[in-house]
Amino acid sequence: MDEEKPIILTAQGSFSAGGKTLKAEGTYDPSHALDPAGQTKHVDHAYVFYQAPKDARPNALVFLHGAGQSGAAWETTPDGREGFQTIFLRKGYKVFLMDQPGRGRAASVLTSASVEPKPDEALWFDIFRFGHYPERFPGVQIPEGEEAADQLWRRVTPDTRTFDAELVSDTLSAAIDRAGPSVIVTHSQGAGAGWRAAMKNDNVRGIIALEPGVGFLFPDDDVPDPLISTSPFGALKAEGVDPRDFHKLTEIPILMIFGDNIPDDMTRWGGEDNWRVRRMEAENMAEEINRQGGDARVIRLPDVGIHGNTHFPFEDLNNREIADLMEDWMIEKELDR
Amino acid sequence: MDEEKPIILTAQGSFSAGGKTLKAEGTYDPSHALDPAGQTKHVDHAYVFYQAPKDARPNALVFLHGAGQSGAAWETTPDGREGFQTIFLRKGYKVFLMDQPGRGRAASVLTSASVEPKPDEALWFDIFRFGHYPERFPGVQIPEGEEAADQLWRRVTPDTRTFDAELVSDTLSAAIDRAGPSVIVTHSQGAGAGWRAAMKNDNVRGIIALEPGVGFLFPDDDVPDPLISTSPFGALKAEGVDPRDFHKLTEIPILMIFGDNIPDDMTRWGGEDNWRVRRMEAENMAEEINRQGGDARVIRLPDVGIHGNTHFPFEDLNNREIADLMEDWMIEKELDR
Repeated sequence: MDEEKPIILTAQGSFSAGGKTLKAEGTYDPSHALDPAGQTKHVDHAYVFYQAPKDARPNALVFLHGAGQSGAAWETTPDGREGFQTIFLRKGYKVFLMDQPGRGRAASVLTSASVEPKPDEALWFDIFRFGHYPERFPGVQIPEGEEAADQLWRRVTPDTRTFDAELVSDTLSAAIDRAGPSVIVTHSQGAGAGWRAAMKNDNVRGIIALEPGVGFLFPDDDVPDPLISTSPFGALKAEGVDPRDFHKLTEIPILMIFGDNIPDDMTRWGGEDNWRVRRMEAENMAEEINRQGGDARVIRLPDVGIHGNTHFPFEDLNNREIADLMEDWMIEKELDR
Repeated sequence: MDEEKPIILTAQGSFSAGGKTLKAEGTYDPSHALDPAGQTKHVDHAYVFYQAPKDARPNALVFLHGAGQSGAAWETTPDGREGFQTIFLRKGYKVFLMDQPGRGRAASVLTSASVEPKPDEALWFDIFRFGHYPERFPGVQIPEGEEAADQLWRRVTPDTRTFDAELVSDTLSAAIDRAGPSVIVTHSQGAGAGWRAAMKNDNVRGIIALEPGVGFLFPDDDVPDPLISTSPFGALKAEGVDPRDFHKLTEIPILMIFGDNIPDDMTRWGGEDNWRVRRMEAENMAEEINRQGGDARVIRLPDVGIHGNTHFPFEDLNNREIADLMEDWMIEKELDR
């Protein structure tokens, strides 16, 4: 088994990417050092941990988490198996894991925030398509049992600022300035920042969006109407961008992946219906990219014989199979060399 | 140079340690999924990233950051050199880096918090003994230049809960349950949680406290008076614990390390004076441990010919020299085998 072979790294470490600097008016007085006058504060950056394997491929993989998550999402599965961080290191890729501004180790931000411990895990159990809380779907791939659930829920970490895809994409682009030629891998909420980073940085060579959840983009003269859903979050609104920016998405290969238990027709189960409209919008967006000559593909995993996947394909029991599918696509698109 | 040799790992990953679970009264209704009724929330755990090198020594090193920091503190120096994470992996130790509850990737907590971007970096520049803001001390070891300063300040990340050494030590002890026999390495604020974890967990084989800053412990029938200081944080108060718990600190070797530019006599410069009283209290605490038959040592780095160190010896230009000194002590105390 791969997990028993050593992992050989040539480098690892972390850095901050992007950000702003606040400065308070006045002059610093060391005898009133608690007064902000004349003092600075560095905010709104991303935190990035990187590792380079021996004989690394030229393209790095830069991972951006989804809502409520941090870069830790990619490290280990809830039942303690290797996550995409280590799996893709073993496949020869340099791996960069980012915490976006206002999340995890990059929580120092320009704006004030209040953090409240709101019990909401049943909501997310349903949204993540583990089942209908507390019942799991038959054959669902998320690891089972109390210990795995404990690990899974404790990985959730709150926001210290409102999500801003434009800001996150600035820091993602700054991370890619350090990473060099890269394939971006986003999860869920991260998708919007992934597309926007590709519009800003020529070092983005491809994008894999795992279950993109918000930030679906269209040329701003052609934004589709909101998609009505029974999702607890209501209708899904697409976003418009300058058509010249949108066109940049036609210049790189794009893969979007959706898991199982997503209905074709509207259902009263908001958790699943949430993904019905998101998958639909992803397919609309891919169609628009391809209509303009691009190369975007949406894979519905059950259509390729892979069943039971949740909103966390990188945590699921078959996460290696998902990684292999991503790798096959990168090989096909010559992103592995 | 070591940095050019590959790093060979047999395992890496992350987990959550300790924590509580909130549950809201009532019954979950999926058609009102935003209502917390009947839902849970996992809070007050630590986040831990671990790596095991090939042919690892039996004792792990478990690192706990100081105030305003996360586990990232140990990863890379502000000027991009290897941090203690990688340096000690190369020395053959399993390395565990923790984010305490309410910090970094473990920000999900039981209590509410507000996070404010208060400019305070001149205060910390002085407290960290980089110099008298904005002038650096001559020969000070913290990396110089704008890029390094940018990286250093962006590593600061806010609290989402009040620091609670007892809670942090519970999660540190839970992390050590996973790590096995361990030497705890604390920085600054982390010290108090380190001592307390050693009182709770027989797998703690030694402690290295880098510039312990708060949480100095004494038997509760013998707590010294507060030490008066011009520090912006005022007088330093020691804490009392059950004498039987205190006695546990006599059963393991303990090393405390303080850097340069700490005065012997009270000064109007609060940043330095802050450390005058902390070093004094550390020496008092070591004396009490040794009086009871223990083995605690306080090293003043300039006394052993190592000059210019700041509050961040693991970030300083001579961080390898500090690591070697720690290693020599571990060898002397047979913690390396």
